[in-house]
Formats: sequence, C-alpha cells, structure tokens
Amino acid sequence: MKKKAVVIASGGIDSSTLLFKTVKENYETHAITFIYGQKHKREIDSAKKVSKSLKIPHKIVDLSSLKEILSGSALTDSRIDIPEVPAEATHYETLKTTIVPNRNSIFLSIAIGYAVSIGADLVLFGAHHSDRGVYPDCRREFIEAFQHSEQLANDNLELKIEAPFVNIDKSRIVKLGSELGVPYQETWSCYRGEELHCGICSSCRERKRAFTEAGIYDPTNYKQ
Amino acid sequence: MKKKAVVIASGGIDSSTLLFKTVKENYETHAITFIYGQKHKREIDSAKKVSKSLKIPHKIVDLSSLKEILSGSALTDSRIDIPEVPAEATHYETLKTTIVPNRNSIFLSIAIGYAVSIGADLVLFGAHHSDRGVYPDCRREFIEAFQHSEQLANDNLELKIEAPFVNIDKSRIVKLGSELGVPYQETWSCYRGEELHCGICSSCRERKRAFTEAGIYDPTNYKQ
Repeated sequence: MKKKAVVIASGGIDSSTLLFKTVKENYETHAITFIYGQKHKREIDSAKKVSKSLKIPHKIVDLSSLKEILSGSALTDSRIDIPEVPAEATHYETLKTTIVPNRNSIFLSIAIGYAVSIGADLVLFGAHHSDRGVYPDCRREFIEAFQHSEQLANDNLELKIEAPFVNIDKSRIVKLGSELGVPYQETWSCYRGEELHCGICSSCRERKRAFTEAGIYDPTNYKQ
Repeated sequence: MKKKAVVIASGGIDSSTLLFKTVKENYETHAITFIYGQKHKREIDSAKKVSKSLKIPHKIVDLSSLKEILSGSALTDSRIDIPEVPAEATHYETLKTTIVPNRNSIFLSIAIGYAVSIGADLVLFGAHHSDRGVYPDCRREFIEAFQHSEQLANDNLELKIEAPFVNIDKSRIVKLGSELGVPYQETWSCYRGEELHCGICSSCRERKRAFTEAGIYDPTNYKQ
C-alpha cells in the first residue's frame, strides 16, 4: 500500500513542482489549497488544474474570514498596493508588505489536521531558499520547531513536515519540474491576480529570473 | 498604555473565566471565537454574551469549511454520536471520539496571526488540568513547543502563549470565576448543543462536578 502525503498547493511554481515530485516518489498524494482573501485568487484555479493533471484528490479550504483579522498585508488588504520591484533588486523592506501574519503556521496546522484525518504522516510545502530572507516562517528552524510541536499535539512522533526546496533556488526547482513534466503554463505566480502576470511584482520578477537562470523556456505571458 | 492580549473564547466555563481574569489583570483583552462545524454552536452565543458583559472586542472566525476535511470527531461529524458517560468515570477511550484533529494548533495559530496584526504579544487559552489525559494538545509540553515555533515564525521572541489553568482543576476555575463575577448562567458546556445542557455528555459531567466540588451554586438547567 502506498504511503499517504498531504501537499499544500498554491498553484505556483514551487508547490506545483512539489506535487509532481511527491507523486513521482510514489506517495498517495493529497493536495490542499487555501482561500484566505488573497488578491491573486487565480492561483486557486491553477492549483485545481495542476492537481487535475495529476489525477489526485484536491481539497480547497475556505478561510476567507481570516481576511478580517489578519490585516496589514498587501496580499489581502485592498488599501495596500502590491509593490513593484526593480528587476535586479532584492528589496526585503518592500517585500515585508507581502507578509500575511502567521500564514504558514495556519496552513500547516490545518494541513496536519487533514493528514491526521486521512491517516497520512507526512505534510509537505514548497518554501524555497530565497523565501528565507523575508519570511521567517519559511526557515528550517521554524519548520523543525513546528514539526516537534505538532508531533506532541497529535501524540505521533511519526508525523513529519518537509519542505524539500528550503535550501534550493527557484531556478533549480524549475529545472527539476521541467524534467518531471510540470505544466508551468498552468501555474500562477503574480500577486496582482489580473488577467496576465504583471511582470513587475516580486513574485513575477522571481518567476522570470528562475526560468532565465535555469535556461528553460518561460511559457508565461507577462504584461510587462 | 495597556498591554494587549488575545483570548480564545469558546463560551464555556474555562475560557469565560480566563477572559475575566485577563481583563482583571489589566490587559486590553480581545476575544476570538471559532466556528468549526461543532454541533454545539450555542457556545458561540455564549462567547458573545460573555464578551459583551465585559465590553471587550470579540471576533468570530468562520472555519466551517474545516468540517469537510477534519473528520472522525463526534463534535463535528453527524454520523458519530456524542458519547454518554457514567457520572463517576473518566472514560478516556470514549472521550477520544471528541478529539478534533489538531484543533488547538489551528486555533492558536490563527489567534497568533490576529495578535501579530493588532500588536499583541500574548495569546491565552483555557486548557485545564483534566484535559491532559485525553487531549495531547492541552499539555504543557505542547504549549511550550508551540510557543517556540511561533516565536520563530514571527521573528518575535516576546510572543507568548499561556494556558494559566493547565495545572489546575475545573473546580478551582469555578471558584476563581465566581470571585471574579463570571456570569456562568450565560456559559455553555454541553457537546450536544440542544435546548438545555444534556447533563450526561463528558462536558456536562465535568461541569456538574466542578460546581459540586467547588461548593458553588450551579445555575445550569440540565435535562438529566
């Protein structure tokens, strides 16, 4: 019997690649996606399409009411614009506006509840190396501490949280994903969530750079 | 300026007492209540009434969609009956059906997100001593480990999670609460959530015992 795993799927490059990797490694893979009031709801459709292409079960959890209590992030607050960033810069201060308070703890704790419900001992998410400068909840120290607390919470020392991309760059993720056949044209990165990828938010900049550095054709249609 | 604190309020005896205690200790107290598909939704009205009696802000967060992914608990699953327990027994095996997978991690991580949003460094919840036998996520080890992970997640070593009743019995909580003037007639414990407290579920049994042991008048109208 296959072992079960739950993967947090955002519809972006990292988590879509992680879905393909987890299926390839022969886990019975269950995708879970969160609606949390993000402006870029288009990513939810992308998560659906990617899960469908793998023929795996996919749960969408509506946490829209969090929008009212988790304030101050450009990703959810209509009063704060998604910052435009220059092509070459890593503007940590600007990117801090894209922090959603405690997002990964919230998503992981729900994903673990789901894992416990279906008898899975493994939860995976797509944090990658360049996240660590801006997002403290994408760092290895956090992941290890959180795993420990969740093992205690559920009286199960087998419970594992893994972020296999936490030490690698997005360009390596793209390389891996193109070998695995990830349909990147279906994935979504842009924080603005308009018709096309804007091309100038931090997430678009990172997406462009990943394909360029990997030397792999970027199928994305950018506005700029 | 008063320090801010967030209290997870379920409308029951423990968290209502905790709200009064936190206000008494001069915190600017913010209550937060979760709808998670529980059969005993009446507790939400109780949480509202108790918060209103203290004139404190109260947020209600709708997590109803969790019901579809957190299965197997008698508290949320219509196919599983709330167990009836004998008056004197502590039936851990029976009570295990009332575990909602990973509930405290989920509630705490959202409460922490809210705390970070409003600039509070303290989150409190009402776990008490007799919870520890059945619910691993009510144990001190879990609370300490979780606090550590949340400090890392939010890059804030000042962030604290406290469960001041974790080593005391419910009868002592009732004693404290009656000194503080908690309107226990407004609180709700019964897991069945019918018109009256059933009197025979584990939560009703515990409620009755707490008042009896404390030697304090129980204002509850029980069906049995």
